[in-house]
Parts: sequence; C-alpha cells; structure tokens
Amino acid sequence: MKVLITSVPFGEIDNLPIEILKSAGADFTINPLNKKLTEDELMDLIGEYQIVIAGTEPYSKKVLKKASKLKMIARLGIGLDGVDLNEAKKRGIKVSYTPDAPAPSIAELTIGFIITLLRSAHQSNIEMHKGKWQRHLGRTIDETSIGFIGIGRIGAKVIGMLKAFGNPKLLVNDISPNYELTKTYNLEWVDKEQIYREADLISLHVPLTSETQNMISRKQLLMMKSDASLINTCRGGIINEDDLYDVMKSGHLNGAAIDVFKNEPYSGKLLELDKCLLTPHMGSMSSKCRSLMEIESTKEAVRFIKGEPLKGEVPEIEYDIQKMF
Amino acid sequence: MKVLITSVPFGEIDNLPIEILKSAGADFTINPLNKKLTEDELMDLIGEYQIVIAGTEPYSKKVLKKASKLKMIARLGIGLDGVDLNEAKKRGIKVSYTPDAPAPSIAELTIGFIITLLRSAHQSNIEMHKGKWQRHLGRTIDETSIGFIGIGRIGAKVIGMLKAFGNPKLLVNDISPNYELTKTYNLEWVDKEQIYREADLISLHVPLTSETQNMISRKQLLMMKSDASLINTCRGGIINEDDLYDVMKSGHLNGAAIDVFKNEPYSGKLLELDKCLLTPHMGSMSSKCRSLMEIESTKEAVRFIKGEPLKGEVPEIEYDIQKMF
Repeated sequence: MKVLITSVPFGEIDNLPIEILKSAGADFTINPLNKKLTEDELMDLIGEYQIVIAGTEPYSKKVLKKASKLKMIARLGIGLDGVDLNEAKKRGIKVSYTPDAPAPSIAELTIGFIITLLRSAHQSNIEMHKGKWQRHLGRTIDETSIGFIGIGRIGAKVIGMLKAFGNPKLLVNDISPNYELTKTYNLEWVDKEQIYREADLISLHVPLTSETQNMISRKQLLMMKSDASLINTCRGGIINEDDLYDVMKSGHLNGAAIDVFKNEPYSGKLLELDKCLLTPHMGSMSSKCRSLMEIESTKEAVRFIKGEPLKGEVPEIEYDIQKMF
Repeated sequence: MKVLITSVPFGEIDNLPIEILKSAGADFTINPLNKKLTEDELMDLIGEYQIVIAGTEPYSKKVLKKASKLKMIARLGIGLDGVDLNEAKKRGIKVSYTPDAPAPSIAELTIGFIITLLRSAHQSNIEMHKGKWQRHLGRTIDETSIGFIGIGRIGAKVIGMLKAFGNPKLLVNDISPNYELTKTYNLEWVDKEQIYREADLISLHVPLTSETQNMISRKQLLMMKSDASLINTCRGGIINEDDLYDVMKSGHLNGAAIDVFKNEPYSGKLLELDKCLLTPHMGSMSSKCRSLMEIESTKEAVRFIKGEPLKGEVPEIEYDIQKMF
C-alpha cells in the first residue's frame, strides 16, 4: 500500500515513525511541497495513495472524490473539521485520530497565554523593542474571573493546571457538561452570555463545527468587559477575525492571544495590533507531543496495513456532530 | 512627621493607603516627578522628610548624607540593593520592607516566561507582526531540565507552581540551601556550574549583592547549552547585559526573558534581539500585589509615627550580607 504523509516536519524529532513504516515495508512519501497543502495541491497528489498520515489540510468532498484509491486517513491530533467524515464513510475510508496526544502541550501554551495577557507582557515586549518603557499594571490568576467555553480534554487540563495559581473564579460552559469535574474543581456552570459579560479572560476549547463557526463575532465581543482578554488555541473560524480587529482597534478589550486562524498561514489585519499576541498554530508544537502524534498515527496506519484492529478510530458521535451542524 | 512617597503610581488601585495616612494625620507628599527618582533627584528632595515610603531608587551614602531629618525608610517589595543598610543604621534610620507581598506575582510572571521561552511564543509574535509565519518546535515543562539559582521566597514559589505541569528535572542552587524543600519537591542540589552546563532553562532568584553582580557574564553564558533559555525577574546587574547581547547575537541561546535591568528605564542593545523577551520591571505589577505592598509599607510608616513596634523591620542578616560583599 502507498502511504502519503502530508503533515510536516515528520520524523525529524524522533526517527521512530520512519522506522516503523520501514519495518512494515510501507511504500511512503513525505509531503513533497513541505508545507500545509491547499485543497488543489491535495487533489493533485492524493490520487495514487491508499493511506494518508494527515495534518490539518482539507479532506473535503472534492478532495475525497479524487482520492479513488484511499482506504484510510490517520490524522495527527484532535481536530476533525478538516475531514468530511460522512463523505469518507460513504466512500469506505476509515478515519483515525490521536486526540489525547496534543492536550498537555496545548493546555500549557494556554496557561502561558493567560499569564502573558493578564500582565500585558506581549505588549510590553513590543513596546520595549520600540524603545518605550511603560509599565502595565496587570493581575494575577488568583484575582481573575476566567471563562471557559468547551471543557473537554484540553479545557479540563487547563483548569487542572490553574489550580497551582490559587482560586480564580471559573465560569464554564460546554454543550455536554461533565459535572464530574465539579467534584474536583470549583466551577460555575453558566450560559455563554454570562461568560461574555462577566469573565475577565475567556479561553475557547471547542471544535470547529457549523455551530461554533463565528461564535465570537461583534455582538459577543462587545458584550465582553472593556478590559477583558480572549484566547483561541482551538481552531480558526470560531472567532470572526474582522470583527475582532474592528473591536480591538476601537480600544475595546485588554488583549487577545490567537494561535489559530480561519486561513493559515494568516496574514490579516490583526498583525497591526500590538495588543494581539499572535502565534502560528503552535499549540501542539512541543517535541514530546509532536513525536507522540507522529508515532501514534503511524502505528495506526501500520495496523491498517496489517489488517489489525485500529485503536484510534474516530467515534460515531463525531460523525453525528458533523451531520447535525 | 513629613512623609515622602517615592514609589509611583501610589494609592491608585486602592485608596486605602491614602486613607491610612490621612487617618494618622500624616503630612505626606507623593513623588512630584511621577517617575523613578535618580540619585540626584532624590538628594534634592529628601532633606525635609522624616519618613520615606520608598521604591527602588538609591538610598546611597550620598543620599543618606543629605537626608538629615530621615528616621525611617519603608520599602515596598523585597529588594534591598537600593538601600545602604549599614549607613542607614549608622545614622539611626530604621528600614522596613514587605518581602512576602510581591512573591506570588513575580513567581507567576516567571511561569509565564518559562512557557513563553520554551515555545518561542515571544519570537513568533514578533515574526507574525512582521508577516512571517514560521512555526517553532518547542518543548513542554515536563520534558525540560530547569535550573534555579536562588530558591528563597520567590524561587520556591515558582517550583511549587511547576508541579502542575508534570515532573521537570529541577537543578537547584542557593547560598543557604533549605533542604526542607527536598521533602516536598524532587530537587537536585548542585553547584552553579552544573546548572549552567546542564539546564535547558535557567531562572535567577537571588538578591543583588557584590557577589551576584555580573554573576552571569560571558563565561557562564558560553557554558550554557546552545538552545538554553535564561530568565531574570530578580534584579538587574546580575546578568552582564553587554555579554548577553554579544552571546545571543552570535546565535547562542534559544531565548531570554529579562524584566530587570542594571539601569532602568532600559534602552540598551538587547532591544535589537527578537529572541529577547523584554518587560519593564513588571514582576510585582499586579493589582493585588501592588496594593498589598502599598498597604503594608504605609501601615509600617504609620506604626513608626505612632511609636508602635514595627512588623517588617529588615533582619540583621541582610545588614551582614551587605557588609560581607
């Protein structure tokens, strides 16, 4: 079977995924363009492969139509918005993912963003580099009311890490609340509007679906406190970037940290704003997490080649969610 | 008694310190220059006051000579490098400080710096703002060997917070090791040279004395791993800034986060380096910490006015340390 690996860099931190593929006798190709593939580029490449070890590039109806030999997609990471799951199923293509591997790395970056925003350290850094010495008075986590939209694998991990910093007020919302968490953490389950209105800092940890797309637009941004901060380390498209720009440009919000964008690489207007901390989709970019995702998705591809049962197959609920929205 | 408050802003977050001074009938003046005072400015002002509620400006032999009426210095925060303690004692001037108030705020900013440096998020932010999308592969705390030089009030608090992120290897050094900490945390007590050579990230939490001045110079910087990171949230002057610039300019070190400088406001060459995260002495700049420091030092000044026993008098050991070095 021919295997295409689109997610790059691959096998560089740890050679193990390459070794695993070689031992299995797999005929594999690493992304010849060495960058995130567009829909067109993927359509050009995909035709001859049975298996793809995939990044966040789009497996849309159009792409899958061209993928006449494809039998399996092994996605690195947790996001499934790039894969048309029900179209894949119709075509008999199995889809696996590695939802646990990226959680610690994304959660930790989120904590870094929380502290940075609360202290305006990103803004100070830009000001200092321009020769401006201007001290910003911030706040510690303990004196902050933090809102979470989405507390699944990653949101819950961020909340766990926050315990080390005192007892912030935690306002949380999730479409399927896990009330078990309330036994361990002091959480207030509230509706999203209360989070928008009352939180000093809001962190998003939801998947991208047609329901969450543009969930944070002008209306929601203007509900937020004028000195609130906003973090998106989950998926682009959930915050309307143009609205965020307009609202922040007008002086509303203390800051925002945005790691994910509707179109990546991002080069839009948010680049103009010093109060906007921007990183290029680096949530899962730690050696350990990256290497774990590569190893897990490679092993899954090899299981498929050998006809063994898969361990990371995407559960039915994810197909249903895509059908619903 | 006439009270001079040099540390600004003062009484803005919380009006309580002003109220306390008014109720005590104190005749107080807030820093008329509204900025950190130089030695000359302080010499011009200090002559008519009995008490000063002080920031980090220098109470040198020269200044104290001009302070003919001064009976008490109530320092906000923990650093005593600005006060010539033994000269003050000789002149019968009592010195108080608030060493516990700033610790949580400084420790939390340090955690923010650790995560930011390990992920190169500060560098990415600058690159993104310049229109460059370049993902950096970093590491999580759990996969990092972290060195601490100085684990007193602040260093120990940082170590406590790190527990939320897994089990990093912790290499620690202190001139008077508190081995009690080893019961709670998995620490390796080592000499400084081992920290320079082996740690992936080094955080400094020592006071500025003649022994720690320029402690981190070219020689120590070059001992560090080429991808090591360095944090200074304690005091300027401990890292030789020119050496740090030269060494980083040559491509050595992954990054540095510097909040404190030999001369503040800082406007030196480190501004040129994107890998250098710079903030303007903001460790204690959280509302809660700032307000606690103001209230505690004000109460101490009022105790002195009323002839009550002081609660935050600087202990003898600090006088001895200044004598030694």
